[in-house]
Amino acid sequence: MSYKSFKPENRFLMGPGPSNVNPKVLEAMSKLPLGHLDPQFIELMNDLKSLLKYTFKTENENTFVLSGPGSLGMEMCLVNLIEPGDKVIVCVGGYFGNRMVQIVEKIGGQAVVVKEKWGRAIEPQKLEDVLNVNPDTKIAVFVHAETSTGALSNIKQLSGIAHRKSCIVLADVVTSLGAVDIYVDEWNLDAVYSCSQKGLACTAGMSPVTFSERAVASIKNRKTPIKSWFNDLNLLQGYWNGGAKRIYHHTAPSNQYYGLHEALLILKEEGIENAWRRHKENSAKMISRLKQIGLEPFVPEGERIPNLITVKIPDGIDEAKVRSELLNKHNLEIGAGLGELAGKIWRIGLMGYNSNEKMIDYCINALKDVL
Amino acid sequence: MSYKSFKPENRFLMGPGPSNVNPKVLEAMSKLPLGHLDPQFIELMNDLKSLLKYTFKTENENTFVLSGPGSLGMEMCLVNLIEPGDKVIVCVGGYFGNRMVQIVEKIGGQAVVVKEKWGRAIEPQKLEDVLNVNPDTKIAVFVHAETSTGALSNIKQLSGIAHRKSCIVLADVVTSLGAVDIYVDEWNLDAVYSCSQKGLACTAGMSPVTFSERAVASIKNRKTPIKSWFNDLNLLQGYWNGGAKRIYHHTAPSNQYYGLHEALLILKEEGIENAWRRHKENSAKMISRLKQIGLEPFVPEGERIPNLITVKIPDGIDEAKVRSELLNKHNLEIGAGLGELAGKIWRIGLMGYNSNEKMIDYCINALKDVL
Repeated sequence: MSYKSFKPENRFLMGPGPSNVNPKVLEAMSKLPLGHLDPQFIELMNDLKSLLKYTFKTENENTFVLSGPGSLGMEMCLVNLIEPGDKVIVCVGGYFGNRMVQIVEKIGGQAVVVKEKWGRAIEPQKLEDVLNVNPDTKIAVFVHAETSTGALSNIKQLSGIAHRKSCIVLADVVTSLGAVDIYVDEWNLDAVYSCSQKGLACTAGMSPVTFSERAVASIKNRKTPIKSWFNDLNLLQGYWNGGAKRIYHHTAPSNQYYGLHEALLILKEEGIENAWRRHKENSAKMISRLKQIGLEPFVPEGERIPNLITVKIPDGIDEAKVRSELLNKHNLEIGAGLGELAGKIWRIGLMGYNSNEKMIDYCINALKDVL
Repeated sequence: MSYKSFKPENRFLMGPGPSNVNPKVLEAMSKLPLGHLDPQFIELMNDLKSLLKYTFKTENENTFVLSGPGSLGMEMCLVNLIEPGDKVIVCVGGYFGNRMVQIVEKIGGQAVVVKEKWGRAIEPQKLEDVLNVNPDTKIAVFVHAETSTGALSNIKQLSGIAHRKSCIVLADVVTSLGAVDIYVDEWNLDAVYSCSQKGLACTAGMSPVTFSERAVASIKNRKTPIKSWFNDLNLLQGYWNGGAKRIYHHTAPSNQYYGLHEALLILKEEGIENAWRRHKENSAKMISRLKQIGLEPFVPEGERIPNLITVKIPDGIDEAKVRSELLNKHNLEIGAGLGELAGKIWRIGLMGYNSNEKMIDYCINALKDVL
């Protein structure tokens, strides 16, 4: 055990997140802490709200940040929306869809699974079919960008189908927010959560969320108490929506919020539509370069997450050794496969601050060297 | 709404936390992020574990950090230990004891309250009496330093009483860890949680926890599933206890962990017993200076939290105006009363990096000026 100050290596973070961040974000995080009820901090919270509304493309009043990572956001949305016995349709095409099923069951919901092949977008007809035989479904949940496979689903279409059957729609945009087109209001997404360390290009540890009036009404009309205090929307509203008079809920991590604020400012300065375009363009360049060195995309064209490219591991390659050499020789982190794709794919992120030609060159050259 | 980079005021944080931190902690937090499975990050996690064992005075293998604030720690411990219908004795002498009751009830436990006057240490006989008429109690929970009142309970004694009745003991050391004597193993505390921004002198947003073998066995032997995925000890163990091979749970906030690591190093360098002594000595000085300017301690001698001093607000004072003037004129934050003590007391923190004579002088002079 070393009792020296920690000096992290200068890694090139091109896995599924975290990614590298603009030095301005790190500078913001190192500013002096503030109290969670300081008037200046409350102004910052208001600014964060506005910036997140811009980022989510929503006018939802209930748009704020949870003081924990994206997986807390997943649990928070589910625990507020689901009452014991509620029927919940979960579209599963990868590891994170499976995690949603686990959470639904842990909190007493009845999960009905729409199963998709790992690496494919959810087929909308499958959701329609399952809804037809489950007309008593209360909530439909789906992952926009399945981080474990690299597949992007058409959540606009899925949301339309679910709404026609009067479901409340919950969407996971953990990997897509800030990097891929998302229109929360236009697409009628009722509850949405994300993370800070991917498309938003901040450090890990925060989960932006947004709730429509319809989702909030459903939560207010629950017949049973929300089975969490920390995640209870009603209590969080007292802290986030209270105008000048805020009700203490938890001690907000001020320095984390500073970082997210700075990252969102940078995103707004670029313009979110420009950020979406940048991710698409760099993704196309990266895929063509990967093909040149013999690495084939795992996901069919048209279903790929722009900011997280998955490639098949060529036969006869010791994939863990490759990743380890990339890390030790080139300081480059790429992601391993998760769940049933372990050993079969690599996951290469080009997210936020990292979605640029320099990183593409660096990654391709390192891969060429090691393979 | 301002779209400028955020520049926090240089506040003197002398409320109930957050407190000011050593600039080295902020510097650590601004280092480059690492992936949550990076071998170097796993080394850092191992170091954090060792440092926390030192800080908690425990050999518990299950000693780690939750990626959320202290209030998440409270919920995490309760949701793992309690099954629906379990009888839980909660000692309540303030706001945070009440919060525990709320959580116990939200997750389906049966809370039996040992009620103490706000501002007093829990009277051990009261716990004994309630245990005598509730021999089927599974868990006894108490707050060491009740942040809302300034009263410090004798949790060594409370733990002894609860253990003689075969209870599992859960202790909240949110405000005391690092500032007040705590011996987790010696005192037989089975599950313990804290926060990062008080005695540990880091920024807010993390919750150190530790679990005895007895607590872990009780969790493993549950008959019903843990009603949380994010807080499930079994899943967190896969990430924290996995040796070189870690199972991904959530994306750890690397930069927060850097900060905590640095803060714990600073604490170890001082020596925790020296830190305890420093907090006691500065507390005595502060109380005598407060008395000189006519501010009387709210809590009787012998029951006071050294690092969080509560004083009665003198008659005829507009307490909110005083706090606002301290903030605007002197950049000094002190805490208001919470719950039934709102308007009746102020809470003055002398924690971690702030427990020194310079801060005492600054606070006293500012109070003299404003009162």
